[in-house]
Amino acid sequence: MRKLSSLIIAGGVSLTVAGCQPSQSPTAQGSVGSKKANVAASSYQGPTFEDDLNAAKVQLEAQMKLPITVPVPKDPGGGYTHEKHKQYATLIYNAGQIYKLTGEKQYADYAGKLMLAYAKVYPSWALHPAKKEQSPGRMFWQNLNESMWLLNAAQSYAAIKDTLTQEQRDLIETDLLRNMSDFLSDGSPETFNKVHNHGTWATAAVGLTGYAIGDDEYVQQALLGLDKSGDAGFLKQMDKLFSPDGYYNEGPYYQRFALMPFVIFAQEVQKNNPELKIFEKRDGILRKAIYTTIQQNYGGLFFPINDAIKEKGIKTRELVHGVAIAYDLTGDKGLLSIGKAQGRFMLTPESRKLSQDIVAGKGEPFNYRTMRLGDGEDGTEGALDIIRASEDPDDLVIVAKNTSQGLGHGHFDKMGILVYDAGYEILRDYAAARFLNVEAKYGGHYLPENNKFAKQTIAHNALVVDETSHFGGSTVLGNQHSPELGTFYVSDGLKITSAEISTAYDDVRMVRNVAMIDDPAFTRPVIIDVMTGHADTPHQYDLPFYYNGHIVDTNLDIEADTLIRKPLGTANGYQYLWKVGEADAGETSQITWLLDRSFYSVTTAVPENTKVLFAEIGANDPDFNLRNEPAFILRATTTNGARFVSVIEPHGDYNPTVEYTIGSHSQVADVKHFAGDSADYVRIETKTGAIVGLGIAKSMTEDQAHSVSVDGQDMVWTGPYKVFHSNGEP
Amino acid sequence: MRKLSSLIIAGGVSLTVAGCQPSQSPTAQGSVGSKKANVAASSYQGPTFEDDLNAAKVQLEAQMKLPITVPVPKDPGGGYTHEKHKQYATLIYNAGQIYKLTGEKQYADYAGKLMLAYAKVYPSWALHPAKKEQSPGRMFWQNLNESMWLLNAAQSYAAIKDTLTQEQRDLIETDLLRNMSDFLSDGSPETFNKVHNHGTWATAAVGLTGYAIGDDEYVQQALLGLDKSGDAGFLKQMDKLFSPDGYYNEGPYYQRFALMPFVIFAQEVQKNNPELKIFEKRDGILRKAIYTTIQQNYGGLFFPINDAIKEKGIKTRELVHGVAIAYDLTGDKGLLSIGKAQGRFMLTPESRKLSQDIVAGKGEPFNYRTMRLGDGEDGTEGALDIIRASEDPDDLVIVAKNTSQGLGHGHFDKMGILVYDAGYEILRDYAAARFLNVEAKYGGHYLPENNKFAKQTIAHNALVVDETSHFGGSTVLGNQHSPELGTFYVSDGLKITSAEISTAYDDVRMVRNVAMIDDPAFTRPVIIDVMTGHADTPHQYDLPFYYNGHIVDTNLDIEADTLIRKPLGTANGYQYLWKVGEADAGETSQITWLLDRSFYSVTTAVPENTKVLFAEIGANDPDFNLRNEPAFILRATTTNGARFVSVIEPHGDYNPTVEYTIGSHSQVADVKHFAGDSADYVRIETKTGAIVGLGIAKSMTEDQAHSVSVDGQDMVWTGPYKVFHSNGEP
Repeated sequence: MRKLSSLIIAGGVSLTVAGCQPSQSPTAQGSVGSKKANVAASSYQGPTFEDDLNAAKVQLEAQMKLPITVPVPKDPGGGYTHEKHKQYATLIYNAGQIYKLTGEKQYADYAGKLMLAYAKVYPSWALHPAKKEQSPGRMFWQNLNESMWLLNAAQSYAAIKDTLTQEQRDLIETDLLRNMSDFLSDGSPETFNKVHNHGTWATAAVGLTGYAIGDDEYVQQALLGLDKSGDAGFLKQMDKLFSPDGYYNEGPYYQRFALMPFVIFAQEVQKNNPELKIFEKRDGILRKAIYTTIQQNYGGLFFPINDAIKEKGIKTRELVHGVAIAYDLTGDKGLLSIGKAQGRFMLTPESRKLSQDIVAGKGEPFNYRTMRLGDGEDGTEGALDIIRASEDPDDLVIVAKNTSQGLGHGHFDKMGILVYDAGYEILRDYAAARFLNVEAKYGGHYLPENNKFAKQTIAHNALVVDETSHFGGSTVLGNQHSPELGTFYVSDGLKITSAEISTAYDDVRMVRNVAMIDDPAFTRPVIIDVMTGHADTPHQYDLPFYYNGHIVDTNLDIEADTLIRKPLGTANGYQYLWKVGEADAGETSQITWLLDRSFYSVTTAVPENTKVLFAEIGANDPDFNLRNEPAFILRATTTNGARFVSVIEPHGDYNPTVEYTIGSHSQVADVKHFAGDSADYVRIETKTGAIVGLGIAKSMTEDQAHSVSVDGQDMVWTGPYKVFHSNGEP
Repeated sequence: MRKLSSLIIAGGVSLTVAGCQPSQSPTAQGSVGSKKANVAASSYQGPTFEDDLNAAKVQLEAQMKLPITVPVPKDPGGGYTHEKHKQYATLIYNAGQIYKLTGEKQYADYAGKLMLAYAKVYPSWALHPAKKEQSPGRMFWQNLNESMWLLNAAQSYAAIKDTLTQEQRDLIETDLLRNMSDFLSDGSPETFNKVHNHGTWATAAVGLTGYAIGDDEYVQQALLGLDKSGDAGFLKQMDKLFSPDGYYNEGPYYQRFALMPFVIFAQEVQKNNPELKIFEKRDGILRKAIYTTIQQNYGGLFFPINDAIKEKGIKTRELVHGVAIAYDLTGDKGLLSIGKAQGRFMLTPESRKLSQDIVAGKGEPFNYRTMRLGDGEDGTEGALDIIRASEDPDDLVIVAKNTSQGLGHGHFDKMGILVYDAGYEILRDYAAARFLNVEAKYGGHYLPENNKFAKQTIAHNALVVDETSHFGGSTVLGNQHSPELGTFYVSDGLKITSAEISTAYDDVRMVRNVAMIDDPAFTRPVIIDVMTGHADTPHQYDLPFYYNGHIVDTNLDIEADTLIRKPLGTANGYQYLWKVGEADAGETSQITWLLDRSFYSVTTAVPENTKVLFAEIGANDPDFNLRNEPAFILRATTTNGARFVSVIEPHGDYNPTVEYTIGSHSQVADVKHFAGDSADYVRIETKTGAIVGLGIAKSMTEDQAHSVSVDGQDMVWTGPYKVFHSNGEP
């Protein structure tokens, strides 16, 4: 961050009247941390592996005093028998791991006892009384949970089997592990052979069992599918479920979940069949998948695209496992700062090593990067584009969702954007409408408003044509199309991505260019967002900005709905938005809001007769299911397409503690768009008269020359993009 | 916190299916910190005095290279000349302090140069062109700022005068320090002699000047008033402005501001006139005032009663000074954890010592306490009652505002309450409607909505009769009355306060009892709130709960305003509330909300025909000046008074990271009130059939016996209060 003002003086020491202080980067709750926190300290005092090991011991010992009561399966997810079986799985796993780590036999005994108790009853269990139609289990309502249970038990059995008698081993192997593995493999081919994340759980569980009991048949089926042809199974899933860049097409929230069986099983494959070089397959796809999951977080939480639960992030157990395994594989000291931010550890040797190296102060900042993550099996179905102002995880970030639909959990926000800064969401995504595990809220399931609002285009920072969602809100149609990508370009002063799609609407081709520019005319990097709908028929274009904060300034004359509020529309998500106010935009709309200690302005050159609508989520919501978040929506009605050219600008510093505010006004005086034959040009004029320009070619050819006439001056460049800095530097 | 459930198992180590984890107390941003943070670590790595000293040096050195340009006074607060003079004051102060601390003469030279530059021009300045009528300044628009400027300069002069020539000293003393002191004392008697916080600043500045230049006349005037009679001046202000408990009647936001000149000047008095024993006066009133300021914070931020800016807290410079001085006086190691949470230091020997002892790991947890802070000069004008569940600063806290009006910045919320938990506001106060220093928002001044909404009773968790504010919204009337206090009682299982007032409304006497009860029937302490309006004429009673979070459950059948919203009323603040929904309460209303990882339920036994209104702040707000926060309001219309008996209950644990939720439902099955002749009795029945009772006598006499018949059983006790625990223990 550049110096904000010459009026800023001594830090922390201003006495009474001249209370100016340099900006200190605020860090949001749960954040990965500021630069300072991101650098491992030499005398670490946070939680360690030993803490978690001791906590697990204490809790196991409490359980070991109680009788073992394996209940007959009865309840669906969340019910008593469901939770009890989950609890026992963790106890079995923990006890086995602790024995492996410490050699203390009481834990092995307890794990054995638990497995014997299950072996006694499991064979008698038919399908679960509350079974799910598609994928029934026996212990649980769905076999996904059964796979997870076995994944735990198999690892524990491997750890403790040497402590058992032959008779005990026979009982556990025959009546529990093989019985369950057979049910999950031959007994559930529709799951086991499916290239899908439930299949990964099933094959990993069965494969781990194979290693644990020494039966290679299970291992081969797990790796290659039931018929061992390789058309299904774990290796196939490694080929199909991640893109070559390690992106998972449902997004990071699901990627994190999918990751778990991959890394756990692959680790055992590596130990038992090192000749398979499993971690080198597809150019190290599993390692890449762990890294991309980390890259897709801000403030410790995953980018909440699609049906994500916003609270999920790097502290989830899947990624705690993943980071430890990746550190074991790579020795990358940047992972130590992620491990430190996670602050919890698994009962594994890898996690112990990670903790030891954190304590030893070996950590380095994680290498957060600006990156394009290609989507799709071959990386050809769009991309998630992440643009970061710097390696500081709390610095300005844009996420451009130029991805494919993302299957059933995908949202209809082609080329939508999210913006983060100073540890916060600045332009936010609603994510899923769901209160996970909160029974009173629709049993903890996705709420009806998830499909009706959260998935709809209007719930996102994405262009909506004629108040309908992309692909008419059809997932089937959405899954068939992905954006065509323009060049992803990264240099010191300019980071930019482009994408377009002509299939989301029948006769509107949408193009979005999103750039981050670092120029001396601004105290901080700014974002230039050019959203264009190309059409030659009449349409209405809505471009929402779900801003996070409190509006403090605008150039608009807003007519607010102060005495009566009504919904903004009647369908496609619009019925969930209250109309709060309305304004005519003139040529340029400028809105400034305050969030914590920073100001943010969006200054947009708009089509003629554009209106700005102010909205708040929460209409048609009788059960208070939705969060009441605000937005403003740029609305143009034209016969020949529409273009919104926005500068999204973080600025200023609001410091209530020492009572000063600087830079509360946008620096942008004017934004203008100029069209050339082969290219477009965006000109920003600041209030001090500085001019910053951005050239964007229509063709992405590297060596093509372009010229755009800007108020009589020809702006000339070669290649897809060109920033024209205010100081004339290249 | 008690164990929440036997299903909870190993921490941080659960692998996949049994993802239960013990609750970790979340810590809000800016919080004083969890128990862990509150205990000083042995190897501290946070900011130190040296960091701030070095930062101040760096910034001073940058300024020392620039020419000194003292501008002619012109702009009001926030304008260039205003800010420039403030800046120079800090530079003068810092340079002087650094010289004193380090002996590096370049800083003394710079401080001297700056003061000489001011001495050259100050005598020529008449009253400020933008002067405020009541209290004009010359350098600034009001003399308050001038006092602050002199307070800085006087301290610096004392530090550096030995480095100056006699000629330089004469110039600075005559043309700057004396000239300014004369203006602020004899020249501004209406401020200097007033028993008011502006008077404290003026007397402190003039008194410090007296010590700095060795003129006892200034010191005596400062201490005793212009005529040295003692009817005015600093000592009088010490007698008048704080209550005997060290409470300041405008509330902690203003207390913090008022504190500064008291502690700075008192320190010099102590050094120069130790015989005055200034820090022992009034039973150590200044030390008490520092401590009560600290006690009045949650999560590092002051209880935002009255016209408070919510972001202000313990990190403000006034309290950074105050804590260092208090530590110097008392050696209380609990202050080190406050200093650590402040994370910034002043350029004083006291602050340096504090920092050194933090670094040396001498800190202990600060002694946060349940306490009654009597209000008024004699402590007889009500009280601020603070009830804490434990010493953990992030634990459950109730603030009962049983204080006096608090002068012009007071809000009309007699006996309103605030509730905090887990680092957050749970039942919140709107505080001031103001964007401090944000020029675009009404010049940074109090917004019109401050008087029209934020001060009104309906903006608070306080009882509103007939949709009018307490005292008809008249500050003059409000200042004449304060609540009568009942006994403040603190024991292990019961902490309780009572208060009543019969002057806020013509013919309604309001009584509120607020208790915190710790009983085995609940996993955590719960709050019992009995709000009664006694009347024998028809009235409407509204009791708002400004809950913070998302409603997840209720026993009410809510008719939501899903298609149209209108304001709840037309006057006294009601016009700023949207009506969001409405329900009939039956006998008991129960509403549960979720905030971060905890659930909160309010279960209320209500009068017949009570309605529950759901509301959101933001109607009639064309400029988006208000925060859109939700509330529910219990509304009873009766002819003979109304009583709302609420259980406010923190419960459960929502953990999205490891995907479990426990205790999301209230434990309260029923709440009933029973009236006896001399006392009332509240009975809570939990869903597991446990019964907890609370007896509250009408008279607060210690030895009076009471009996209330509860469903045929006589509940008997002696004294004002009695909790009847579910396990029969006393």
